[in-house]
Amino acid sequence: MLRFLTAGESHGQCLTAIVEGLPAGLQIDVQVINRDLRRRQGGYGRGARMTIEEDRVQILSGVLYGRSTGAPVAICIENKDWANWRERWQSGNLPRFTVPRPGHADHAGMVKYDMSDARPISERASARETAARVAIGAVARQLLAGFTISVGSYVTEIGGIAADLPDQSHAKLWALAEANDLRCPDRLAADLMRQQIDQAREDGDSLGGVFVISATGIPVGLGSHVHWDRRLDARLVRAVMSIPAIKGVEIGPAFENARRPGTQVHDEMYLDDKGGITRHTNRAGGFEGGMTNGMPIVVRAAMKPIPTTVTPLRSVDLATAEPAWTQYQRSDVCAVPAASVVGEAMVAWTLAGALVEKLGGDSVDEMRSRIEKA
Amino acid sequence: MLRFLTAGESHGQCLTAIVEGLPAGLQIDVQVINRDLRRRQGGYGRGARMTIEEDRVQILSGVLYGRSTGAPVAICIENKDWANWRERWQSGNLPRFTVPRPGHADHAGMVKYDMSDARPISERASARETAARVAIGAVARQLLAGFTISVGSYVTEIGGIAADLPDQSHAKLWALAEANDLRCPDRLAADLMRQQIDQAREDGDSLGGVFVISATGIPVGLGSHVHWDRRLDARLVRAVMSIPAIKGVEIGPAFENARRPGTQVHDEMYLDDKGGITRHTNRAGGFEGGMTNGMPIVVRAAMKPIPTTVTPLRSVDLATAEPAWTQYQRSDVCAVPAASVVGEAMVAWTLAGALVEKLGGDSVDEMRSRIEKA
Amino acid sequence: MLRFLTAGESHGQCLTAIVEGLPAGLQIDVQVINRDLRRRQGGYGRGARMTIEEDRVQILSGVLYGRSTGAPVAICIENKDWANWRERWQSGNLPRFTVPRPGHADHAGMVKYDMSDARPISERASARETAARVAIGAVARQLLAGFTISVGSYVTEIGGIAADLPDQSHAKLWALAEANDLRCPDRLAADLMRQQIDQAREDGDSLGGVFVISATGIPVGLGSHVHWDRRLDARLVRAVMSIPAIKGVEIGPAFENARRPGTQVHDEMYLDDKGGITRHTNRAGGFEGGMTNGMPIVVRAAMKPIPTTVTPLRSVDLATAEPAWTQYQRSDVCAVPAASVVGEAMVAWTLAGALVEKLGGDSVDEMRSRIEKA
Amino acid sequence: MLRFLTAGESHGQCLTAIVEGLPAGLQIDVQVINRDLRRRQGGYGRGARMTIEEDRVQILSGVLYGRSTGAPVAICIENKDWANWRERWQSGNLPRFTVPRPGHADHAGMVKYDMSDARPISERASARETAARVAIGAVARQLLAGFTISVGSYVTEIGGIAADLPDQSHAKLWALAEANDLRCPDRLAADLMRQQIDQAREDGDSLGGVFVISATGIPVGLGSHVHWDRRLDARLVRAVMSIPAIKGVEIGPAFENARRPGTQVHDEMYLDDKGGITRHTNRAGGFEGGMTNGMPIVVRAAMKPIPTTVTPLRSVDLATAEPAWTQYQRSDVCAVPAASVVGEAMVAWTLAGALVEKLGGDSVDEMRSRIEKA
Repeated sequence: MLRFLTAGESHGQCLTAIVEGLPAGLQIDVQVINRDLRRRQGGYGRGARMTIEEDRVQILSGVLYGRSTGAPVAICIENKDWANWRERWQSGNLPRFTVPRPGHADHAGMVKYDMSDARPISERASARETAARVAIGAVARQLLAGFTISVGSYVTEIGGIAADLPDQSHAKLWALAEANDLRCPDRLAADLMRQQIDQAREDGDSLGGVFVISATGIPVGLGSHVHWDRRLDARLVRAVMSIPAIKGVEIGPAFENARRPGTQVHDEMYLDDKGGITRHTNRAGGFEGGMTNGMPIVVRAAMKPIPTTVTPLRSVDLATAEPAWTQYQRSDVCAVPAASVVGEAMVAWTLAGALVEKLGGDSVDEMRSRIEKA
Repeated sequence: MLRFLTAGESHGQCLTAIVEGLPAGLQIDVQVINRDLRRRQGGYGRGARMTIEEDRVQILSGVLYGRSTGAPVAICIENKDWANWRERWQSGNLPRFTVPRPGHADHAGMVKYDMSDARPISERASARETAARVAIGAVARQLLAGFTISVGSYVTEIGGIAADLPDQSHAKLWALAEANDLRCPDRLAADLMRQQIDQAREDGDSLGGVFVISATGIPVGLGSHVHWDRRLDARLVRAVMSIPAIKGVEIGPAFENARRPGTQVHDEMYLDDKGGITRHTNRAGGFEGGMTNGMPIVVRAAMKPIPTTVTPLRSVDLATAEPAWTQYQRSDVCAVPAASVVGEAMVAWTLAGALVEKLGGDSVDEMRSRIEKA
Repeated sequence: MLRFLTAGESHGQCLTAIVEGLPAGLQIDVQVINRDLRRRQGGYGRGARMTIEEDRVQILSGVLYGRSTGAPVAICIENKDWANWRERWQSGNLPRFTVPRPGHADHAGMVKYDMSDARPISERASARETAARVAIGAVARQLLAGFTISVGSYVTEIGGIAADLPDQSHAKLWALAEANDLRCPDRLAADLMRQQIDQAREDGDSLGGVFVISATGIPVGLGSHVHWDRRLDARLVRAVMSIPAIKGVEIGPAFENARRPGTQVHDEMYLDDKGGITRHTNRAGGFEGGMTNGMPIVVRAAMKPIPTTVTPLRSVDLATAEPAWTQYQRSDVCAVPAASVVGEAMVAWTLAGALVEKLGGDSVDEMRSRIEKA
Repeated sequence: MLRFLTAGESHGQCLTAIVEGLPAGLQIDVQVINRDLRRRQGGYGRGARMTIEEDRVQILSGVLYGRSTGAPVAICIENKDWANWRERWQSGNLPRFTVPRPGHADHAGMVKYDMSDARPISERASARETAARVAIGAVARQLLAGFTISVGSYVTEIGGIAADLPDQSHAKLWALAEANDLRCPDRLAADLMRQQIDQAREDGDSLGGVFVISATGIPVGLGSHVHWDRRLDARLVRAVMSIPAIKGVEIGPAFENARRPGTQVHDEMYLDDKGGITRHTNRAGGFEGGMTNGMPIVVRAAMKPIPTTVTPLRSVDLATAEPAWTQYQRSDVCAVPAASVVGEAMVAWTLAGALVEKLGGDSVDEMRSRIEKA
């Protein structure tokens, strides 16, 4: 079993994560993690915060001589912005925050945790936490690489502008996405998205969008049909839905498939060279019966617009129980490209967990010898 | 913590389920469970099997004098069809099944579990198992009822025919859905769906669709933003995605929200009569920051067409490693109405679990006194 | 992950269990399960109930053609005594039970679950439930057998009579234990224990004792030192302590080791024939650093006397809040031999779970090929 | 649900822990944590390492204005010794370690994690990790304090010297234990233990012992009889057994109770002033039916002698497959007093978890209002 915990606030000292259950012998390259952290930070539409931070990971334990030891791996990412907040934070001199923002955790969190100030809620609910997840995902990605499993993502829609995706392999789409700051394989659409974001910024508004996470090199039979909570597609969807602002997910073109007759949906099977089974289509998005079927995994996710807008929204001041307008807090205009990187991390993590479960996970070499045999 | 396990095959002796963690003192009415089992069995488009079965639940333990005792509740639903299968089943004389069906667990299951015959896979992967879930959900529903939480569902799309939903309360939509065998609140659309199903049956094809599960009377603050795996919307989505053939899920109109600017998406807050907060819109589908916000929960799910079609699909005979066509197995043409009832069960179950977690769950009376205080 | 749930009351219709996570391809012999059920039922000192019951298991699902399919296995054991209780049970005409018994779950259960009658508590707290665990353990035992792991037990002390254990292999001790109805390898001690039990019966009293569960053929490296909850010795001890009336457990002669200097405790290492490591002593009871070290596992457990005694004990009638004496309920005088069989089951189960975790658990053949390689 | 992960090696940079599931509003005093860290470090018989370290905790997140926010709490304890190890550690110039020590995780860990050097195993298996657990336990202790639950410990036996315990309340025994560096309430026995430790040091040997952890102010009904894994006594025993070198545990005088007839073991019930139930004895150690019964919890634990001894033990050099003697590594002679403090932490943690489960755990105020009502 692979598991992790993260801790840390948006303007606190640092983000901390502990990953437990990693097999021993995994070569962990800090540069690979930092590269993913940079990919999360980039993206057109981010706010001023990202000009302050330059996320770098520190590995505090669980790795000796560059390889995992089987022991828990502790990870730390410092918040550079902490220098600006430290005094206020420690003295308790943070401004009162009593007007919850629609779309945010503020109100529900205050009610749940019995608080008259939303600060402790918003600090933890902030998507800043996803930097820790990206670091964890980058570790998982390095585990998967040893099994020729790759995970990537690309943005397909922002603020109503939809990309026209070329009919390309996933690897090619990932490479195209890497080439611009919208993470969109369609460069023309990317240009329009950029304009849309500029317009939204001018309007004091925010934007959401849609992205795809895909994974290739997947063995047949991760997950299982035998019990509801063993279905890997459902676990994957949960992992992706747990990213702040993600509200919809589909495996393959699910909503479109729902409109078609079965004979046009199910991916027919053909004999491959090695006497196995292959497909010419992948409408199932890589899953049948809750198990991987060997085809690429394709997950599409819908992100709502950032809930913090310069244009105030109607709310209530809970200190006075009077109607009030939300007050602006520094935020992004659009974080879809960043979210797609977090999505990769959550998918990589979930797949790594399924792999450890399937192969047993004491050491990477052992895992590798087992899959070769399989 | 509330948990369950189900067991049972499609043509085996019975389905069994054990529910563990129910608070004591819950009045459990077997008729309410049987009613939901009937609702699952009905629905236009089901196959011949449903004329054989008339599902009824037996409670074997955990209930004394009509009330739960806190002990595990064992549930049994007999398969009437067992009488027809028993001999073949026990003698091992079931026909060989070596041509996996596209869209099914057959192939991945055979590879995973190292089998040369798909029977043991298809028997468990069959949606027959969902009858046990509906029974469990009906128990959860009775727990929720004591907290004025209701869960219902309706079908909005089948085979490309989309319902035109009246602007009505959830309770009203549920009632309209109950009134026809498509579980669709739009009677005219229901008629067209029925024709579409007839056509698909004639074509030897199958159909999928879309349904909505909604829940009302939800307290603020179930789930949490503090850790990825405490987000209740993500848990809910996993639960719904675990239903066979469900491939896409959204909370509120997520894919549509992704196209709109933030100021048109986030549900503004207004003061209600009691000094609390209310909304005039519910584009968030009842969740902010992974927590319930007091508005109705709205989950929309996309179901792929039934993978078993009379029209054969291309596959491979794994016994001979030769191309082959799938052979027909008795099946439904469309099971969207049934799936919507299973969806209710999974949502009811997940909410009951969140409630037990929030309130502590030794006895229903204790839980009730705690929520009244809150 | 291997998991199970049990359900059922002492005088209810049946015991039910569902085992989830079993690898596919395991040959399950019902006779092996029934044999363990008989071993649990036997034992000198049991009460009248055991003359009524003749426990036999029914497998309701998860097995096809005699082999596990990977799907959940449902198990049922009927209570023959149910015939005598059914009417009273269903009509609600069971006698009021308001004087909790010292040593029993009665009082704490009534407080916890908010009940004025102890019946629903005592029905589930009864050790009758352990029959289901023995059945589950017998399934686990059949899995372990494929890896040449054996689990057995013997009684070493009852009512103060301690056995004088011959210096024999575990297998030999198990065989000696099987030879008498005290499950004690020392026949002379067994005779004295029998007399002690007769005396206790005459005195209207009850007896406890001590037993040893041991396991042989254990691979090195089950469990782990890396995190507190991965230590297998601690899991094992929890599993054994979860048996009703078990209050103390040690791995190896722990309390004696605590008195000795380190040089006399730690099992020195010697080269074995195959270049591996062996020991001439096993004071560690098979565990170092929370992991199996390849030596036999030795767990010793202390059982308190049966809390239901013919001689009344001081209590309080909770209906009247007046002092009262406990009223006799049919019970055993001594159940140590039975508990030792349940102990085997819990150890077998825990080891099976550790094995599935280590090897990955899709099919028994796959697991076997992996351990051969290791 | 309350959970934690720890990370960190004995000679690495620091220990890290993340605690997840703490209710909001808990006042966390760092001094209370540091005091427990000091209590763990003290104790006669520790080695040179403890003169280097002066453990202090840093809270990195989850606390704002001195109170928990409901978010995960990250904790860091620096290893001062790191300064001495850093260069060797990072350059990979640590001496080869290929002779596993009997009694240690070394050998099993090397086999399990496929390593030719024991360093990565011994670094994590070291009891240094328990400093993190003590910090976590000190947080749990502060939660329990709000419910008038106290946890303490005392040493009763070291190297064969047994304390003669005065017939005193638990609080008094804890205070007596605090008064000497053996943590033993019997000052005369403490003097003898000190001599025993001096002798062992002179002999190049090591010592184990026995300690008691007790807890007072316990509400009735934590844990449950309804399922094996809900029994709190078994969970508690697992938690204590997970401490390095602990090999035996009993709840109340279990092994002695096993020799007595039931009428002399079970704690008779008496009416208390408030119409509730009280006892004059506590042979059950605070548990009946796996649930707390309101009496103090009493857990007794046996610790084996430290496995690292100056006097070499027979082993094998795994680099050469030749017999070899263990080489001395810096270590303690006796760590029983330290282990008793870790035991408190594990018990406090387990009880805090049970309390959160029983009461629901969103905020401390809410929990408190619920228990007052109960």
